Amino acid sequence: MNLTTEFTRIFGVKYPIVQAGMAGSTTPELVATVSNSGGLGTIGAGYFTAEKLEDEITAVQELTDLPFAVNLFVPGGQLYIPENVEKMQAWLKPYRRALDLEEPVVNIDEQQKFNDAIDIIIEKGVPVVSFTFGIPDAEVIEKLKARNIKVIGTATSVEEAIANEQAGMDVVVAQGSEAGGHRGAFTESDNGQTPMIGTMSLVPQVVDHVNIPVIASGGIMDGRGLTASMALGAQGVQLGTAFLTTDESGASNLYKNAIENSIETDTVVTKVFSGKPARGIKNAFIEEMNEYNDEIPDYPIQNQLTNPIRKKAAKEGKEEWTHLWSGQSPRLARAIAAATLVENIIKESSDLIK
Amino acid sequence: MNLTTEFTRIFGVKYPIVQAGMAGSTTPELVATVSNSGGLGTIGAGYFTAEKLEDEITAVQELTDLPFAVNLFVPGGQLYIPENVEKMQAWLKPYRRALDLEEPVVNIDEQQKFNDAIDIIIEKGVPVVSFTFGIPDAEVIEKLKARNIKVIGTATSVEEAIANEQAGMDVVVAQGSEAGGHRGAFTESDNGQTPMIGTMSLVPQVVDHVNIPVIASGGIMDGRGLTASMALGAQGVQLGTAFLTTDESGASNLYKNAIENSIETDTVVTKVFSGKPARGIKNAFIEEMNEYNDEIPDYPIQNQLTNPIRKKAAKEGKEEWTHLWSGQSPRLARAIAAATLVENIIKESSDLIK
Repeated sequence: MNLTTEFTRIFGVKYPIVQAGMAGSTTPELVATVSNSGGLGTIGAGYFTAEKLEDEITAVQELTDLPFAVNLFVPGGQLYIPENVEKMQAWLKPYRRALDLEEPVVNIDEQQKFNDAIDIIIEKGVPVVSFTFGIPDAEVIEKLKARNIKVIGTATSVEEAIANEQAGMDVVVAQGSEAGGHRGAFTESDNGQTPMIGTMSLVPQVVDHVNIPVIASGGIMDGRGLTASMALGAQGVQLGTAFLTTDESGASNLYKNAIENSIETDTVVTKVFSGKPARGIKNAFIEEMNEYNDEIPDYPIQNQLTNPIRKKAAKEGKEEWTHLWSGQSPRLARAIAAATLVENIIKESSDLIK
Repeated sequence: MNLTTEFTRIFGVKYPIVQAGMAGSTTPELVATVSNSGGLGTIGAGYFTAEKLEDEITAVQELTDLPFAVNLFVPGGQLYIPENVEKMQAWLKPYRRALDLEEPVVNIDEQQKFNDAIDIIIEKGVPVVSFTFGIPDAEVIEKLKARNIKVIGTATSVEEAIANEQAGMDVVVAQGSEAGGHRGAFTESDNGQTPMIGTMSLVPQVVDHVNIPVIASGGIMDGRGLTASMALGAQGVQLGTAFLTTDESGASNLYKNAIENSIETDTVVTKVFSGKPARGIKNAFIEEMNEYNDEIPDYPIQNQLTNPIRKKAAKEGKEEWTHLWSGQSPRLARAIAAATLVENIIKESSDLIK
């Protein structure tokens, strides 16, 4: 096994370590530190306005000359059902009242925001874009590739990985069921379930069915996880939870503490925060809203409806009412500098391999 | 990394490969072949009568002088609720009618059967016993250890692994959520859910919290899985699905074909067959019975109620009405001799490690 892979060569990075696009928790310092440490930092731009995206890219570029990525959410075919939104507004009223919040106005024009983001990325010369929630239109991918911008897709099954390869992605992230935060799934079975395949199963099956490099994600926190992923045939790893507790992460202390005090059985996959399945530490909001599980408005509607509640709850120290995304390995989280994390992972892996 | 571990030394086996106790699908030929190939074969005795257990042990002992194990189900505190059993009998009537079957009589005295099995194991000089569904009483473990019989426990969380170590188990199997067949869980959260932690997350967290050797299971099918597990800190692996499709397995051709024709998204975890959660390929029986999910009698009651249906359905080629246990890596299944499987895994792993 070798830590120099086709992935590190194509992307021009020293180590096969990608910091996940943890939307809401990345900072320019985190992204640049990861890249300066030899990995691939990622701006989690899923929720950004055009202005914010431009500012963040500029800030990262001031801190590093090395490759970094921007992660975007691919707009889907969400349905706006007024009746469902009204119902949800009513169910959320007690939280808003307790936090002294008004009802937010919903805006579902994600496509324009996405197109603008692509233009900004091209204009600012960002070297890598990664996608979650699906595959963008062929013309978007062509536009990026014509400018030599590398593209990374996300898959939670072999079928999704093959679709990413066929769409022209340079590499694909195989996201196992252990992963924290949003599931990248964009296919579902007859009963509406999205794939939940463990990393140990998903990675080798994906590797066997695509020719592009595969990046493993889900439950990977240290050199053991990196080495295991390489053994499974991956050419790199993507880590989210592990970077959330680093000094440079944008996660609040409340959020970091929640991860550091959790155990592997504390997380659940829920749609109640955003309308899309995501893994986080279970709390009162998840339990209380769970009874409306079949009537939750589609992403990004539910996301916008709950966002002010989650933000204010986090600010006021109410961890029971905010999202606490985490993978299934919180016991392995380390509260250290991001550079030290990258260094430790490489050292731990090198010790195992030799 | 080294394939000679504390586990292989303590158990006197050449390779760190355990064939799982796939109750209903092991044969003396499979168990002996695995042991003769350098791994640890296991008689899946969970459903055996005393007579059958004695016969199978004798048959294995005629085929090998090397160590092998017997896997037992630890009796739990199941509840017999006559009303629920009556309801289930009514729901199962259409299947019985179609298959021309009588209603079975339920017998829940698992404790006596378990005690008899322990006595037989001691009498016949079986070198290893593994346990699923919990931890037996201290006196059972003492009795076995006094005769130098090695004991293996099963855990699906760190808490369960620690309980196994404290009970005196020589090693513990960490069963990830990818695993096929019955979940070995014996703890649940407030909402009645048993742990579903992916192998990539579970193994290193368990390794960090116990001092006994850890055997990884869940999604492991080849040398990549073995090497990955060793990197995560395991001292061996346990494989079920991978051995189910070998020539010596007791699985029917119907069952083998179902695994070979499945993909990673085809399995679900269900209680409808036995009353305990188990992972299998989804079919009509699971889908149809799923609506009664909250009223399924405890194991072993449900197991006994559905058993004749599953047996006869399998015999008649109705794969829609029988259990088709499988982990999440069916694409990696190989229809080969068990000895070749063990050989291949070791070769693949050695190639990766060097």
